[in-house]
Order: sequence, then C-alpha cells, then structure tokens
Amino acid sequence: MSSGLVNPVCLERVADACGGKLIGDPAATVFSVSSLEDATPDSLTFMVDSSKLAENHGINPGVILLKPEDSGLFSGPRIVVADPYLAYATVSELFATGFKEIGVHSSAVIDPSVSLGSNVRVGAHAVIAAHCQLGDGVSVGANTVIERDCSVGADSVIDSSVTIYTNTRIGMRCRISSGAVLGASGFGYAPDGHSWRRIEQLGGVRIGDDVDIGANTTIDRGTIGDTLIGHRVKLDNLIHIAHNVKVGDDTIMAACVGIAGSADIGKRCRIGGRSSINGHIIIVDDVVLHALAFVTKSITVVGEYTSAVPAQPARQWRRTLAHLNRLDKLVERIKKTGNKND
Amino acid sequence: MSSGLVNPVCLERVADACGGKLIGDPAATVFSVSSLEDATPDSLTFMVDSSKLAENHGINPGVILLKPEDSGLFSGPRIVVADPYLAYATVSELFATGFKEIGVHSSAVIDPSVSLGSNVRVGAHAVIAAHCQLGDGVSVGANTVIERDCSVGADSVIDSSVTIYTNTRIGMRCRISSGAVLGASGFGYAPDGHSWRRIEQLGGVRIGDDVDIGANTTIDRGTIGDTLIGHRVKLDNLIHIAHNVKVGDDTIMAACVGIAGSADIGKRCRIGGRSSINGHIIIVDDVVLHALAFVTKSITVVGEYTSAVPAQPARQWRRTLAHLNRLDKLVERIKKTGNKND
Amino acid sequence: MSSGLVNPVCLERVADACGGKLIGDPAATVFSVSSLEDATPDSLTFMVDSSKLAENHGINPGVILLKPEDSGLFSGPRIVVADPYLAYATVSELFATGFKEIGVHSSAVIDPSVSLGSNVRVGAHAVIAAHCQLGDGVSVGANTVIERDCSVGADSVIDSSVTIYTNTRIGMRCRISSGAVLGASGFGYAPDGHSWRRIEQLGGVRIGDDVDIGANTTIDRGTIGDTLIGHRVKLDNLIHIAHNVKVGDDTIMAACVGIAGSADIGKRCRIGGRSSINGHIIIVDDVVLHALAFVTKSITVVGEYTSAVPAQPARQWRRTLAHLNRLDKLVERIKKTGNKND
Repeated sequence: MSSGLVNPVCLERVADACGGKLIGDPAATVFSVSSLEDATPDSLTFMVDSSKLAENHGINPGVILLKPEDSGLFSGPRIVVADPYLAYATVSELFATGFKEIGVHSSAVIDPSVSLGSNVRVGAHAVIAAHCQLGDGVSVGANTVIERDCSVGADSVIDSSVTIYTNTRIGMRCRISSGAVLGASGFGYAPDGHSWRRIEQLGGVRIGDDVDIGANTTIDRGTIGDTLIGHRVKLDNLIHIAHNVKVGDDTIMAACVGIAGSADIGKRCRIGGRSSINGHIIIVDDVVLHALAFVTKSITVVGEYTSAVPAQPARQWRRTLAHLNRLDKLVERIKKTGNKND
Repeated sequence: MSSGLVNPVCLERVADACGGKLIGDPAATVFSVSSLEDATPDSLTFMVDSSKLAENHGINPGVILLKPEDSGLFSGPRIVVADPYLAYATVSELFATGFKEIGVHSSAVIDPSVSLGSNVRVGAHAVIAAHCQLGDGVSVGANTVIERDCSVGADSVIDSSVTIYTNTRIGMRCRISSGAVLGASGFGYAPDGHSWRRIEQLGGVRIGDDVDIGANTTIDRGTIGDTLIGHRVKLDNLIHIAHNVKVGDDTIMAACVGIAGSADIGKRCRIGGRSSINGHIIIVDDVVLHALAFVTKSITVVGEYTSAVPAQPARQWRRTLAHLNRLDKLVERIKKTGNKND
Repeated sequence: MSSGLVNPVCLERVADACGGKLIGDPAATVFSVSSLEDATPDSLTFMVDSSKLAENHGINPGVILLKPEDSGLFSGPRIVVADPYLAYATVSELFATGFKEIGVHSSAVIDPSVSLGSNVRVGAHAVIAAHCQLGDGVSVGANTVIERDCSVGADSVIDSSVTIYTNTRIGMRCRISSGAVLGASGFGYAPDGHSWRRIEQLGGVRIGDDVDIGANTTIDRGTIGDTLIGHRVKLDNLIHIAHNVKVGDDTIMAACVGIAGSADIGKRCRIGGRSSINGHIIIVDDVVLHALAFVTKSITVVGEYTSAVPAQPARQWRRTLAHLNRLDKLVERIKKTGNKND
C-alpha cells in the first residue's frame, strides 16, 4: 500500500467524472484508489470481472465501480458504468495529489525573450533559453533545460531533469518524464575514406498533442527536416527514436524499443517492449509488434508480427541450438534419405 | 593505469579490514590497487589462482592478498586470507578517495520542511522538495532532484543528476548512480474506443537497504500500491523496472534488463544482461537467467534459463535462418519419407 | 521541413569548404540544406544518384552538389565534387546556427581551482568541481555536472545535462550529448557467501579526440585501470559500456548496444544497433556486427557476424518455434529412418 499525501474526493465528483450512476451518499468521500483485494472503507475500487469476487468476499470499499449486471452483488456505495476499467482510468486523476504550485521559482534562469502563458509553473534551477514559448498552464520541473526556439503547448507537463534541445515543438497536454532527451543530434556520419565525417543535424523535433514520453527516452532531431511524433502517441521508458523517424497518431510503444533513422511507423500501431525497427522501414497503420520483434523489412499487411524465442531451461536450449546449427547437415541427410526412397 | 588522487593506506589497516594475517611491516603503506600483472611496490594486489604466477614472475607488489597454501610463493609483504577476491572487494573501499565534504552547498534549494540528519552533504544546485527526510550521513550529489514526501535512509549516497519522484522511500547504505530515475509515472492506459486514456499512477517506490542502482536505470512508481525493491538488490545501468514490479532480496541484475509491469522476481536471482521479463510473470527464488533470456511464462522450478542465439558468421546464419523458415516443409517431407518406410 | 533560425551562407564558402568547383554566382546565398525532393531556391541540396532525378524533375535548388558526370543535368548553380554525400557532410556544419555565446553564466558553480582555457562557455547552473581542466574553446551546457579531477580537451562540446564523474579525461573536439553519464561506478561485486560485497571501482575513463557520445549513453569507470575509448569513436544513444572495456580508434556503434566488462573491441569495427557483447570478449579490428548480434566468444577473424531473427507474421513464427522445440525428436526420427535405409 502506498503512503504519501491523500486527497479526499466525494462520490458525486467521482460519478460525474466517469458518467456513472451513483447508488449511495453523494457527499461521502474516499481518499485513495485500491485493488479489489486491498479495498477499505476509505478507498475506491473497481470490478471488471465478477468471478474475482469469490476470493475477495467480505470486502467493504468506500465505493466500487462496476457493470450494471454486477450492481446487485454489492449493497454498499457503488457507481454503475459500462466499462469499469475505463471509468477507473478516468477518475484516477482525481486522486493525484497536486503539488503544482503556480509560479516561477526564483532560482530558475529564464531568458527575457521567453514568452510565458498564464498559470505557468517553472521549478527550481530550470533553464529556459531565448525565444521559447510556453503556453498557458505549462509546468516545467526542477533542473529541466529547454534550449532556444522551443515551444510547449498549453497544459503540457515537463517533469524534472528533462533536456529539450533547440527547435523542438511540443503540443498541448503532453507529459514528458524525467531524463527524457528530445532533439539531441542524430547519428549521421559519412565515410571519408579513413574515418567518419559528422553530418550536422539541422532539423528539429515536432511532437503532437496528448503525447506521453517516458523516463530516459531519447528522440533525436531530424537531419534536414523534423522528427515527427503524432498526436496521442504514448512512449514508455528508455526508448530510442532516431533522426527523421515518423510515428503516426495513437501509436503506443512499450519500454526499450529502438527505432533507427527515417523509419515511418503508421497510426494506431502497438509496439511491444524491446522491439527493434531498422532504418527506412515503413510500417502501415494498425500493426501489432510483439515484444522483442525485429523488423527488417517494411510491413505492408496489417497483422501481428514477432520473432522472439521464449526462455527455456538452459540445457534444453543448448541442445536445440546445437541442432539448429547442424540444420544444414540434417537437410543434406534428409535429401539423401529422400532420394533413396524416391 | 588510472591517475587521479591517491590515498595512502597502511598494511595493518588492510589486514584488519579483511581479517587476514599480515606477514610484513604493519606500518608500511600502499597507495592503490592493481591487477597482478601491473603490481608495483606502491600497490596492493591479490592472487586467486596461483597458476597465473608463471606469466607474472618477478612482480614486487607492496602487498598481496593470497590463500594460505600460496603464502610460500612470495617473500615480500603478504596477507593470508581464505578468499583473496572477497578480501580485495572488502579492502577496495579503503582506497576510494573520499571527496565528500560535509555540508549543504549554498546553491542547493531545500524546502524548510525537509528533515536533514547529521553529517548530511548536499551538492550544488540540488533540489529537495517539501517533507523529505534524509538520514544521518546521507550524500546528495550536484543537480539531483528529490521531489516531495521522499525519504533516504542513513549513509545512502545519491550521486549527481539523479531524479527521485514524490513518494519514493530509499533504505540505508544505498547507492544511486547518475541519471537514474526513481518513481516516474508507469505506463498505464485504458483503451477508450478511439485512443488511450491515461491511468494516473498513484503509488510510490520502496527500496530496501544496501541497494545499488546503476546509471540511467529507471524504476517506475506503482499504479495503486508501491513498486518494491528488496534489500541488497544490485541493479546495473540502463535497466527498466515497470510499475508494481517486486524484486526479492539479494537479487542482482546486469545492464539493460527490462521488466514489465507487476512481475514478481524472487530472492537471490541472478538476471543476465539484456534479459526481458513479461508482465505479471512470477519467478521463484534462486533462478538464474542467462544474458538476453526472454521470460514469457512464470518460472516455478529453480534452474538456469536462456533463449539467446550466439552470433556467427553472417553467411552461415543466413543459411540456418533459411532452413529454419522452411522447417515446416522439412517436417512435411520427413513425415512422408517416414511413412513410406513404416 | 524544419523551422528555427537560419544562417545565410554564400556559394563561394560552400565550394571552398568541400573543395568543389562552383558553376554559378559565388556571392549568391543559400539558407538551409534540403533533400532533393524538398529543394527550393533558398536551399542547398545534393545528388548521389542521378536516377533519382526522374521523380524530382523541375526542382530548382539554390545550389546542388553533384558528380562531374551529372553536371550537365542542371543548368542552375551547382558545385561539382567527387563524392556529393561526403561534401554535404562537410558543408552541413556551415548551416548550424551557432548559439554558443562565449562566457560563463553567473549561475554556474565553478571551483576556484578549475583551470579554464580561453573562449570557454559554461551554461546556466552547470557545476564544475575542484581541479578540473577545460581547454580552449570548450563548451559546457546548462545543468551539466563535472566532478573533481576531470579534463576536457580543446573545442570539445559537452551538451546540457551531462554527468561526468571524477577522474574522466576527454580529448579534443569531442561531443557529448545530454543525459550521457561518464565514469559511474562499474558493476563489480564479490559473493560473500550470503549476498554481494561491493568492489570499489577505483579507475577512471579516458576518451580520445573527436569522439561523439550519444544521449543517455553510459560509460562506467574502470575497476583498477581506466575504461578506454579510442580516437574518433562514435557512439549513438542509450549504449552501455561497462568497466574496463576498450574500444579501438574509429569504431562506430549504433544505438542500444551493450558491452560487458573488460571486453576489448578492435579498431574500425562497425557495431550494429542493440548488439550485445559478453565480458572479457576480444574482437579484432575491422569486424562488422549486424544489428542485435550477441557475441559470446572472441572474434579472431575479420568478417560480418550476426544472430538476429527477422520478424514475421506471428502465426507463422509460432509454428516455426514449435518445430524448433521439437528438433530433438525430429533428429531422432531421421536417425531411425536413415538407419532403416542404411
């Protein structure tokens, strides 16, 4: 169970937020969210699947979000909704303890040419360089650096210790987690006969609205044009997105994905953790990559793709590997055997 | 050979620290640690395996840690111990050049509500927000950010440029390397029919005593409860630990491991580099994962697990891959051949 | 197309920089670089392959870099060079908009013992500890931390939010991107019968001239000696280099590579993205690793190495995996069949 500050929320507000029907006292309050098994009279919980109830009988939540057909299973305060999990997602933000005091910390260094919207928050030791534009309600965390000529759309939250290079444009309502680096120089070199000649990366990064970017994820700036992240894209932690990549709207990527330069990923794709996508690959809309998929050719047909090998006992895998590395000889032998029989 | 500051240490202190028997002058000093082949009269070295001596004859170390049965192989200063490698690990910290001046740098921003123990160090431009508690002897590096309602146990060392989100609890004697991000928002979304609805992550992170966390490693906060890292866990660099993961005491992970949400890893596991563990997986105590293992099912039996393919010449692997992708037809053919013979 | 500041460059300067022959007005200017299809009268472009011209007929670039045999294909301003791509790389830096105002920001914390060359730039809230040496023309970005006893060679650029531990030596003309961590404690532990005893890492990091290090890449310090990165090495983002690794001159690594402790990588190697190299491995000069290669044994023969499996439709791969895991039985069956026939 988590500790920390709590935030009382009345049941009427919960029901309003998720559009559900409240059965119970609208003025009663809950203080936190809990799983079904940890439910207490002070917490809100939710039930997606009533078969889970058997192992949790006797629970007494402050309020429970549940489906119409399950409403009769509880006599206490409840909110009836079509999709309890989505309703839980929707109301979860009511319980976030908001620390975002308005105002600019006196230790922040903000160039006089920066344009700040209303209700902007800038944390201690943040640095915002010349000609940046921050929209209304933007929050910038402590020790974050925003270099020249960047813009951040209204109500976006840049957490602490983020680094944003020159010429990065971020949409509205985005959330950038700590350690993320946006707009670093892409990896571009031309061979000069002896070694590698650096190609100056002259483009920027453009990020749509409602984009989330995870901790320590890196998105390089474009070589000539911009690296493009569409609207509502969700990126987990430790993802690498190289220069000139395009990611379509509503695409979601789990942690540790790596995408090489100029790859063009469609809309509504779901990219599993630790997937790798080669440079200049095109992936159409609605493709699903399972975890650890390694995409080496463009994907033109919607579907699920994979290439990962699940772990197994080491001895067994060693035997399989040995067979795999002798497949050549095996095939040879079969051909011989086959021929004898033909 | 490394340069930098040096720290004279007398042999008596070395012998005391590792509980060994010194043969030589207790007041003599050494200034550094070296490998067997780079040993000098100013350095301490150690010998695990006396067969290495042949290629290093004539060396003249300031002192050598060695096993009882090898004591007669040297006439110079030596310390006899049962396990020379462990003894070397133990005494290595005597040679660390301690730069940790006590005190809080005047440029650090520390909220008045923060509780600081005695002998605390806070580096330049560090930011420590409201209601944090730092135990005795804690060190916080330059430019590190600790958000509200966090605690750090006695004698823990948080290096420079670390980011610690709200509601993170760190035990005693931990070491957190630069770029680590503890408590960022986990990757939780509910589909809303069109796109992805963010689920506010309301839990925290709880880290035991004697835990080491490597550079640029990320540990997300829990969705409802806390993400839990046990005592004496050691995490290398660039590891991803998602929300609600549990890692048991004494488990160790090499670099680039990725663990998806709610996985539950046992005690004393050894997780090889770049291993991947799916969400909601359970792994029992004492399991060993080789490098690059991809765990897709819970592991209930102690043992070693793997699924990696070692690199080989590209042409050879291409041939094997071609066979692999035709296994279907090969099996077909064998069945036919077999049937003819049956 | 990228926005942001622009930098007018006259054609004479372009031709001088790449050693090409200008056909056109030397005083005419261009403002940016573009791809062939986005060329405008204000931009410089380049053509490597004249077959691309068909799909881009009618373009009217400010100037085009092209091969001698293609010079007749354009009537407008053009610069004739042997290698248009290399020429583009060379002139690209003319178009970089230089924001590097000289001087030390008043909020930077620099120890009095630090030695600063001429024309050094230090950004806001940077921290430079005792006894560091920065050569002429060095640039240190905002919020970057450089700990004690480090040196940075002339004209190196350390971007914002970089962390450099004690006893790191960086050569001349290097570029270190944001989030990089140089010199963190390597991952060294000795088993003590119950758990893990930390081995203090007493070495440093030594980096040659003209080295580029990508965003959020980590290079650990040596255990006893130094971790060594040769001249002109180029490292992409999110790479892990463990303690005591050696990387030879002119070697280049794409993103997400992981190299375990004490590996010794030769000169002029090309390491594909997400490759993994085990500890204590030796790789000779001029080796090529394809993306995702997993090196488990030393490589003594020059060549290309790989072990990755390309993604395919999930159903197809599941079938192949099933066959793979039954190879044992298949081989058994073939032996039987073969024996019957022998």
